[in-house]
Amino acid sequence: MISDPVRLGVAGLGRGFMLTLPSLRSDPHAALVACAAPREESRTAFVAEFGGKAYATVNELAQDPNVEAVYIATPHQMHREHADAVASGGKHLLVEKPLAISMDDADAIVESAARAGLHLITGPSHSFDQPVLLAREMVASGKFGAVRMIHAFNYTDFLYRPRRPEELDTAQGGGVVFSQAVHQIDIVRLLMGVRATRVVAMTGAWDAARQTEGAYSAVIEFEGGRFASLTYSGYAHYDSDVLQDGISELGLEKVPATYGRSRKALSRLTSPADEPKLKSGRTYGATDAPSPAPHAEHFGPMIVSCDRADLRLTPKGVEIWGDFEKKFVAAPPDPAPRSPVLRALYEAVRNGRPPTQSAGWGRASLEVCHAILEAARAGRFVDLKKQ
Amino acid sequence: MISDPVRLGVAGLGRGFMLTLPSLRSDPHAALVACAAPREESRTAFVAEFGGKAYATVNELAQDPNVEAVYIATPHQMHREHADAVASGGKHLLVEKPLAISMDDADAIVESAARAGLHLITGPSHSFDQPVLLAREMVASGKFGAVRMIHAFNYTDFLYRPRRPEELDTAQGGGVVFSQAVHQIDIVRLLMGVRATRVVAMTGAWDAARQTEGAYSAVIEFEGGRFASLTYSGYAHYDSDVLQDGISELGLEKVPATYGRSRKALSRLTSPADEPKLKSGRTYGATDAPSPAPHAEHFGPMIVSCDRADLRLTPKGVEIWGDFEKKFVAAPPDPAPRSPVLRALYEAVRNGRPPTQSAGWGRASLEVCHAILEAARAGRFVDLKKQ
Repeated sequence: MISDPVRLGVAGLGRGFMLTLPSLRSDPHAALVACAAPREESRTAFVAEFGGKAYATVNELAQDPNVEAVYIATPHQMHREHADAVASGGKHLLVEKPLAISMDDADAIVESAARAGLHLITGPSHSFDQPVLLAREMVASGKFGAVRMIHAFNYTDFLYRPRRPEELDTAQGGGVVFSQAVHQIDIVRLLMGVRATRVVAMTGAWDAARQTEGAYSAVIEFEGGRFASLTYSGYAHYDSDVLQDGISELGLEKVPATYGRSRKALSRLTSPADEPKLKSGRTYGATDAPSPAPHAEHFGPMIVSCDRADLRLTPKGVEIWGDFEKKFVAAPPDPAPRSPVLRALYEAVRNGRPPTQSAGWGRASLEVCHAILEAARAGRFVDLKKQ
Repeated sequence: MISDPVRLGVAGLGRGFMLTLPSLRSDPHAALVACAAPREESRTAFVAEFGGKAYATVNELAQDPNVEAVYIATPHQMHREHADAVASGGKHLLVEKPLAISMDDADAIVESAARAGLHLITGPSHSFDQPVLLAREMVASGKFGAVRMIHAFNYTDFLYRPRRPEELDTAQGGGVVFSQAVHQIDIVRLLMGVRATRVVAMTGAWDAARQTEGAYSAVIEFEGGRFASLTYSGYAHYDSDVLQDGISELGLEKVPATYGRSRKALSRLTSPADEPKLKSGRTYGATDAPSPAPHAEHFGPMIVSCDRADLRLTPKGVEIWGDFEKKFVAAPPDPAPRSPVLRALYEAVRNGRPPTQSAGWGRASLEVCHAILEAARAGRFVDLKKQ
């Protein structure tokens, strides 16, 4: 039991919050004590469930003396303004990935947190998933030698889930590079354990009705000649979760009857204006959060090739394929899929031990996102400078 | 039944021939009538099994009036000389992939065949595998829209199978780029159906005892902004055939008890000089060919993303993941896994209808191999000129 959970405020009660909510409900390391949200319906629901204070603006939330840390789950392009407000209020920060969209914003956020001497964790992110942390421990043990290559891919219907217009506009952080690649980037950076040096990529934007990058293949070079290849399709019909024990990104068992659900829902809309409504129907107060997940979250198949073993991450743990034998190591159980990031927040705030995924970390992953877009646009290897 | 099989001579009775042998035994489109091989043991075995003539040199084989076509399965660096001899003798050619190692050699081979007015098929190659041909038909039907992206990966112990020294020397065509990438390249070129335009890649050479590229991740751009990503590890412990119904590259059911077999055999060698012996123990006459395979061959997991479906190739056929439903289409049965290339040879020689995989085709795939090495070495996108 935790007697002193971090008193957490949340800024934004949209989709990001909804995905973390089941973990916030189950994990003891953080207690929701306040929120900020523009929609009254969401605020009312928050107070009904958690008690505490509900503000219309992040500025007000940032000044609440009972709040120790704020989870910033507002749209990406607002992170800078909100992080600045929260840091000015002297609260620690948990900022949804990507940390920001522009590198300028990311710089400003890094600066705000550092100047105020506050902890900033970029997360939740799938780099906090239990099997990833387990694989990192295995790598760090040195038992399997160096990580040489990582291969990650993920096939989802990301582009056909209900979207607000800015989510389909790359300049505003839309498309799969900022919101999806960043997970793969976080994970491979964590597992490589050395700095990324340059990036090359090709991207695809092949749906004229949704004009943003929906797919990419990228290769990231790391110090020592290591590299990681990342492939993602958000246009997918194929579902790579079939290779992940049939478990969804959020740790839930997938139901075959839901095949094609996103495309079906979209095809039923009679007007483009209905799509944002479909999306806001998924925010807090309008519908319930996903069920508590029985498994860890994951971000698609991933194979980590070391000198003396290949490690395959699954939602349940890590398969170790060694020189002469293979075995499976289960990830340790947790109260909820996002317990690791909430535990990390607790460790930072209570014990002064922040995780690797700092503000600077989030900026470095964002830099790789930009490098993917630039490499594909300009047709060149892009050197990284903020790792 | 075929009453007039192509009277085929084979140059080289090594590993390449051994892998095609079960199909040559089962398929009616070609009849082996002669061979050329430097080892007397192999020649004796050939005559015992097939009758016909056995020569010590390819020049002699090329002059045999009973031979209509020659299957060149000698080491890559000898292809040019042997193709020239065979073309001078007026025989059609089936040349193992890669067509050659140097682009100069490939140019010379293209020229030899063209000047003599002979058919040259670059193959066998996994682009002739039944599920690949089935997927190509599906794509060509237009039913699923354009191919936008292909993702291919393959994890094998290629680098730890017994090797001659030149197979571990990139300058001599060693490593995985020339002999393994070329399959993935052939397949994605065939399925894209448009020209490849440029290539980017990173390669890994991380075993100091076997200094050649053993792994790579490459992205190939095609006309119209399409792209294919290829990842391969020949250092692998992980075996991607687990995603292919447990069926090996050669179409055989895999046996779990063979886990780590290549590394085990290599670790038992007491002197480096023993390794080529281990390899020559796998040539014709020294041991039997692999059993006849019950399934099609394959070259690892592959997902072909089209506008209205993703196609996943398996050794048994093609899974079609459509907008609202998915289904599986089995590949048509064939007498042997390499029947399609033998049928293609027959169609070329008897009916004047050569397959796509011509000499120029083989050169174009070889160009992509070189581009992978150059892109990784120089850190730049490499434009293709011979597609």
